[in-house]
Parts: sequence; structure tokens; C-alpha cells
Amino acid sequence: MVDFKELRKKNLELTKKAVKDSVSKDLLIVQAVNSIEELTTVANMLVNRLREWHGYYNPEFSKNTPDNEEFVNKISKAPKPKDSMGADLDKPDLKVILDLAKQINSLYELKEELTKYLETSMKEVCPNLDAVAGSFIGAKLLSFAGSLKNLSEMTSSTVQLLGAEKALFRHLHGQGKSPKHGILINHELVLSAQFKEKGKVARALADKIAIVSKVDYFKGEFVGDKLRKDLEKRFKND
Amino acid sequence: MVDFKELRKKNLELTKKAVKDSVSKDLLIVQAVNSIEELTTVANMLVNRLREWHGYYNPEFSKNTPDNEEFVNKISKAPKPKDSMGADLDKPDLKVILDLAKQINSLYELKEELTKYLETSMKEVCPNLDAVAGSFIGAKLLSFAGSLKNLSEMTSSTVQLLGAEKALFRHLHGQGKSPKHGILINHELVLSAQFKEKGKVARALADKIAIVSKVDYFKGEFVGDKLRKDLEKRFKND
Repeated sequence: MVDFKELRKKNLELTKKAVKDSVSKDLLIVQAVNSIEELTTVANMLVNRLREWHGYYNPEFSKNTPDNEEFVNKISKAPKPKDSMGADLDKPDLKVILDLAKQINSLYELKEELTKYLETSMKEVCPNLDAVAGSFIGAKLLSFAGSLKNLSEMTSSTVQLLGAEKALFRHLHGQGKSPKHGILINHELVLSAQFKEKGKVARALADKIAIVSKVDYFKGEFVGDKLRKDLEKRFKND
Repeated sequence: MVDFKELRKKNLELTKKAVKDSVSKDLLIVQAVNSIEELTTVANMLVNRLREWHGYYNPEFSKNTPDNEEFVNKISKAPKPKDSMGADLDKPDLKVILDLAKQINSLYELKEELTKYLETSMKEVCPNLDAVAGSFIGAKLLSFAGSLKNLSEMTSSTVQLLGAEKALFRHLHGQGKSPKHGILINHELVLSAQFKEKGKVARALADKIAIVSKVDYFKGEFVGDKLRKDLEKRFKND
């Protein structure tokens, strides 16, 4: 007779192992790149608050320091002009403001740490994608696709539009032009292209990405550098 | 002849001084309470990310620790069950996850520091409002009104609806019922009231707040305790 209890136990074990083995490093990359984006959002939100709050004390410093990271970094040593329009705050009132600044500063540091981790991991898991798309955009492509496997199964026209889903569906419902690029708009080759050329560059880039993601998924040789150079030769404006 | 240059200089000086003197402590309270709210939003967003990310490693811990602060606090020492469904991560992969947790933890600490600062400041600047409404809700009322001066000029029916602007305008445009309470819905007396009584309690509470904000603005005597007790006697369910 079949021992159902034993069967169930074995089955559970197998399932747990299958779940365990399903975690591949590309999923960790997706988490890392999304964290980086969220840390950026969060830091921007808190810097806006900090500028408003600290502005009661030293409005001139905020005005003269437009860069957010520099603002947060130098705030504790910011000189206050003698004829400042800012109020003179008591120590405890100023302390909480500077503590907020410290916190934002360490958010920036974490973001930098994660960016380095992302670069190392991309080189390890998908070196070709990394070479052609860059680590951040490459990781975002993984995130939009869901995994390296999914990305490797996509046609280049799908890759070209990853991140432009909203515009694409707007177009499919008869509103607006068809999008020419999703996240690839931020790639330096597309950025540096002339306005009329951007679509063309994005298409060529997506072609190569569709190739290298397959190479990376099947752990093929390193061809990313060559493909990247081909693209640069064709499109780089100097 | 009038010395316009001198006149302009004096005028500038006067204006700068007027700007400087316009910063009163209630404005700092408004900044603090809004920061606390933003830190809560930010921490929740990052905890969600952390749970998803850490779940690849130890999904059982996230499931067994529903409280966010506890989750973040204990994560670095969380035991991993032997038959865990989570993958075994390399050290660098786990390190970034735990560093994110550390960061969120210090966001919680900052939130606590700001909460203490808020309580002290409220007691100092508007002790009566603090006694009747509590420091957080009192500060939110200042924030909605813009300043203690503005709040002190409001009728109790306006105070009752601070924070319910959306519902109010929906009602004024013929959609939905008129709101009975804005931020006051979170006050413990309203929270503990029965559903049908909530509007009544909020109205009585708003009456007292309209009184104490005037007392605080004109730096009158401390009557907050007495008014709070009157309310409690009338509405407290035990």
C-alpha cells in the first residue's frame, strides 16, 4: 500500500528545495537596483524638507548650494552670513535639523554602497549585458523583464520598449505616437544622439541587448566589449 | 534732498529684520511634525523592500515578525530554520540587505528623537493645545492652519474639519455626506467613542481646541488640564 504520509513529506521537501533553488543572483540584482531607486526618491523627499526647515535658520545657504548632496554634506559647517535673514535658533531647535541632515547623508552613503554592489554583481552575473547597457540600465532591464531568463527570451523590439509600457498602451488605445525607447533613453549613446536619431540608436542598442542577454543566460563567451565598440563606432558623436 | 541710496539701505535692513522676526517656534513645530510623517512613509516604503529582498534568504522570519520595527531590529540576529525555503546567500549578498536594515533602524531612531522634540516644544509653545489635543494632533492642527496665529483665529467648526478638506469639498460639490472630523478622528477620545457618537465628540473637542489655541496665542494661563478633564468626564467610556 502507498504510504501517503511519507509521500506528502517527500513532496514537501522537494517543493521546498525547488523554491530554494529558484533564487538566482539576477533576482538579487533586481532588488538592489529597485532599492537604489527608492533611496533616491526617499533622499529627495527628505532633502526638500531639510531645505525648508533649515531655511528658517540660514536661507542663504540653501540658495547658494543647489546640489542636494553637497547641501546635506556641508550643512553642519555652513557659515551663516552676518546680515542673514534667518532667525537665530536655540541649540535644541538646530540639533534636530542637523540630525535629519546626518540621516540623509547616510542614505546617500548606502546608495553608493548598493551601487558598487550592483556593479560587481552585474559583472559577475551578466558581464555582456553590463558591457553593452551599463550596470544600472542593465539591472533596470532585468527588473522590467523580471529575470535574466525572461529578458533572454524577449525580442529586440520588446527590449527597446521596456520601461515605456505606459506610452505604448496609450498608443495602442489610439492616443499619442508609438514610443521609441523606454529606459534606454537614459543610455549615454541615446542621450548623446541628436533628437531625430534617438529612435534609431535605441533600436540598434536593443538589438545588441537582445543578443547579449541570451549570451549571458547561456553563459557564453564575453563579447560585450566588441558589441559595445561596434555601437560606439557607429553612433558616437565627437 | 532725499538720500535714496541711504533710504533703500535702511529699508532693506528693516525688511530683513522683519523676515527674521517672522520665524516663530510654532513654524518649527510644523516642520518637525511633517518630518515625522515623512519619516514614517519613508520607513514603510523601505521596510517593504527589505521584506521582499530578505525573503529570498529567510522568508520564515518575515512571516513570523509582522511588526515592522521589530522586524528591522531583530533581522541581523534572526535565526534561519534548518528546513528554510530561503536560498543560502553569499556574504556580500547578505551584507547589503543587513545594511539596508541598519539604515531603516536609524530612521526609526530619528523619528523617536523628533517625537520627543515635538513633545517638549509643544509643552513650551502651546501647553494648552498640547494638553487637550495631544502633541502630535496639536502639531498637525498647527500644520493645517499654517501657524498658531491662524489656528487661534479659526472658529471651532473650522477646527473640527481641519484635515478633512477633500471630503468637505466633495460634499460642497454635491458628492457624499458632510465630514464630521478631520485629523481629530485620531484623537483618543474620538477613537474610543462609539460610531454614532464620534461626530459629537469631535465637535466638543473642536470647541475646546478653538478656546485653548486662543489662550496659547495670547499666552494666557494654563487651563488645558481642566478642559481635558471636562471632556474626559463627559465622553470617556470605561
